[in-house]
Amino acid sequence: MEIHRLCIIGIGLIGGSVALAARAQGVCREVVAADRDAAALARAEALGVVDRGYLEVAEAAEGADAVVIAVPVGKMAAVFAALKPVWSPAAFYTDVGSTKASVVQAAEQVLGEVPANFVPAHPIAGRELSGVEAALPDLFAGKRVILTPLPHTDVRVLERVRAFWLELGAEVHDMSVSHHDHVLAATSHLPHVISYCLTHLLGRRDEKDEIFQYAAGGFKDFSRIAGSDPVMWADICLANRDEILPLLRRFEAELSAFDALLADGDRQAIHDYFAEARAARQRFLDRYSGET
Amino acid sequence: MEIHRLCIIGIGLIGGSVALAARAQGVCREVVAADRDAAALARAEALGVVDRGYLEVAEAAEGADAVVIAVPVGKMAAVFAALKPVWSPAAFYTDVGSTKASVVQAAEQVLGEVPANFVPAHPIAGRELSGVEAALPDLFAGKRVILTPLPHTDVRVLERVRAFWLELGAEVHDMSVSHHDHVLAATSHLPHVISYCLTHLLGRRDEKDEIFQYAAGGFKDFSRIAGSDPVMWADICLANRDEILPLLRRFEAELSAFDALLADGDRQAIHDYFAEARAARQRFLDRYSGET
Repeated sequence: MEIHRLCIIGIGLIGGSVALAARAQGVCREVVAADRDAAALARAEALGVVDRGYLEVAEAAEGADAVVIAVPVGKMAAVFAALKPVWSPAAFYTDVGSTKASVVQAAEQVLGEVPANFVPAHPIAGRELSGVEAALPDLFAGKRVILTPLPHTDVRVLERVRAFWLELGAEVHDMSVSHHDHVLAATSHLPHVISYCLTHLLGRRDEKDEIFQYAAGGFKDFSRIAGSDPVMWADICLANRDEILPLLRRFEAELSAFDALLADGDRQAIHDYFAEARAARQRFLDRYSGET
Repeated sequence: MEIHRLCIIGIGLIGGSVALAARAQGVCREVVAADRDAAALARAEALGVVDRGYLEVAEAAEGADAVVIAVPVGKMAAVFAALKPVWSPAAFYTDVGSTKASVVQAAEQVLGEVPANFVPAHPIAGRELSGVEAALPDLFAGKRVILTPLPHTDVRVLERVRAFWLELGAEVHDMSVSHHDHVLAATSHLPHVISYCLTHLLGRRDEKDEIFQYAAGGFKDFSRIAGSDPVMWADICLANRDEILPLLRRFEAELSAFDALLADGDRQAIHDYFAEARAARQRFLDRYSGET
């Protein structure tokens, strides 16, 4: 793949990692970025992540043959509006949003319909750190990227976007927009909500009981994702609220059912419940992760 | 420290790791074990974890000058009953139970009072694997061990038990029985319950939606502790039910409060909630773990 000018819109952890990976793999001659934060652009230039930074989206995107939108999902509509006057039929466009229906809706609202040369994408990769300083050239290596093409997506563009993510080291899967949002609500969005809620509760208790001093490995694992960017996650929760809210309520019902087992003191039922959960985890490991 | 005969009661992950660590540090001349599972004893002997295994607790403990009880907390009363006829004033006794009030109660019920030479202990160390095969000589290195001595505990025995855990590489802290159970309910027991409940819920959904195929890092972190031993954790939940149940209900209330923020679509409130949780996690990391 030979890209003349790759334009990254939003130069944070993910946008920066796309830039670094594209440079490392030699897929583009130059990388430019747009960001509203001049300091972030300056750091991206100083770190050699991009060749040039622009405060204006249209200025950065004009003349680019590949555009990657890497802003929080709540900012997608504003980015589409800024891209509209310079939208090029010769380029391909993709994004990295963690929810996909909201991105498609934003494109429809602003552009009338989703352009045939925009392929919504979601790289399932990240760190609990934020900002271009945290960007890594191998962030996508061996990670899944889900593409959610629409019925009228240009097939040649789809294959070009697929080739792009493959060159960054990812495994690429296709999925419908609605299936993506349904699955990710369960495997990513709900766990983030739970982690934030538990850390919030224990944080308040820590102020009086100093409980963090004796936090075991369990809590460290749990709270790691509560280090994620609050702006990004407030956006994701609202963008995928229709999937997250019913699932959160099912989880509340699950806790309440367990609460009843514990209140009853039913040792066998508690044991069996834990054993079923452990078996489900083992199925997950056996099938998908190669761990034991 | 020179122990002639170290006796481990219950030769699983933790008991096996105590044996391996004690041997590696040269703190004892011989290690024996009692377990009801003849196959586990045979594996422990074959792996060189212990010198000899016994099916009877009294046989293993007789003549030992150090006894470590490493059975699930629900089995403590039975172990105290088996130790009663051979309880030696010359030895020290300690345990590794994850709850402490229940262990103290079991000792009182069976022995009349908690012997002055028994020091309840809880090493905050573990793996999601079970069994003597998973035992490691450095499982306690750099980990915290909490001792919960009672007012009538013999001070010389307390210092001997402290020295024992220090020699296994642990950092030793003293705490009251009730404070231990209160703190651990928050940092360990509740996270385990949540992990089991989430994994249980998603396991059922996976059967129809294949969601595990796209599980992100968040879910892997979360489900790790749902791989823990169901027998041990059913015991812990019942043993510390008086602390876990009210806390579980506070967590249910926490989720329900977040549910309301999400249903209202209040972006600023959701953002602030996440930002507070992230700040609490950062306090935890700054103070206790040295990570950033």
